[in-house]
Amino acid sequence: MPGKKVSEKTIRRLSHYARCLREARIDGTPFVTSKHLSERCGISSAAVRKDLAVFGEFGKQGSGYEVSGLLENIERILGTCDPPPVIVIGAGIIGSALLESGLNGTGGYRYLASFDSDPKTIGKTIAGVRVQSLAELRDVVSEQGDVIAILAVPPGEGQNAVDNLVSVGCISILSFTLEPLDIPDGVVLRYVEVSTELDLLTYSLKCRDRS
Amino acid sequence: MPGKKVSEKTIRRLSHYARCLREARIDGTPFVTSKHLSERCGISSAAVRKDLAVFGEFGKQGSGYEVSGLLENIERILGTCDPPPVIVIGAGIIGSALLESGLNGTGGYRYLASFDSDPKTIGKTIAGVRVQSLAELRDVVSEQGDVIAILAVPPGEGQNAVDNLVSVGCISILSFTLEPLDIPDGVVLRYVEVSTELDLLTYSLKCRDRS
Repeated sequence: MPGKKVSEKTIRRLSHYARCLREARIDGTPFVTSKHLSERCGISSAAVRKDLAVFGEFGKQGSGYEVSGLLENIERILGTCDPPPVIVIGAGIIGSALLESGLNGTGGYRYLASFDSDPKTIGKTIAGVRVQSLAELRDVVSEQGDVIAILAVPPGEGQNAVDNLVSVGCISILSFTLEPLDIPDGVVLRYVEVSTELDLLTYSLKCRDRS
Repeated sequence: MPGKKVSEKTIRRLSHYARCLREARIDGTPFVTSKHLSERCGISSAAVRKDLAVFGEFGKQGSGYEVSGLLENIERILGTCDPPPVIVIGAGIIGSALLESGLNGTGGYRYLASFDSDPKTIGKTIAGVRVQSLAELRDVVSEQGDVIAILAVPPGEGQNAVDNLVSVGCISILSFTLEPLDIPDGVVLRYVEVSTELDLLTYSLKCRDRS
């Protein structure tokens, strides 16, 4: 696995294992079994063993995987040993809630700054994070290098915000807005889509009714 | 497509088309082309045409798809013509923000009620939705029939909340909590996982650095 590009599905599973291993580390548990990881992550034991086979030296017959060594290796693959800081664009209802609920339990991510266009919001501090003017975005991003931007702007303002982020060199964006957004090549945009998740649940309810 | 079980990937695309068609309906646009749907949904034109081929009568050479007829058919497949009401478990930071930001643009979903265990929060009204005691959960769910529950409880309280929901007959859950949750067969649980999304973005930054 190390060295070659890993599929999104595998990265997603590794992210789950890492979360579980961090919990174990906090609990002071030195070893975890594939069964434990399987149950905690909702992934079959066989899949866990297959994923982790590449880290052979951390799995021991009988005692399981060595927590800190395995976590370190997974984090090296994910790039999360030293995760990029997170900025929030839009300090409205969702943006504020994200800042207030923080990033504990995510393995080292932290909010660096937030940005808004509303003069009444700029200058406020939310959960220790200052809301800055969008005019300051360029300086913050160019000073930091890699950042992840969470987009939490009102409907209709998404594309403008993305264009702004791209123009200052931000290439990793997680959008909480519903609108589809255009991005140039080289920019990675992911969506947290509550309405799509609701549709998937509604469809599963409908299938249950029919079966 | 109608009649047989559709894959999650297809449901996700149909959900995107539906959102786009609702926008067109609001704009008063009677027809949309596959190119328009492709651009708005970030899905290739070929895939759009393939997905929508089953609704043949709504696609016309040159003019595109008839918005209201196509939307009606997609919503019939999704089961979203009459979507189930949504309840929110946990009226803390994230739960309140979800209630306040509402479900406009989701095609008919609405918040029915919210529930909390904190006596200081119970009785409050957030964006028109009353926060009720968890003791009232059973009555609300049994009166409504199908509901979707959004889980927005503090860390460590997720499993308890899920057990509670399952015991009153709720089988569709969307979790905003990080912790892995056990559910019995027949219950569908989906996660909105901000930390996994951050890991996926971090990995893509890392791959960019290497290439």
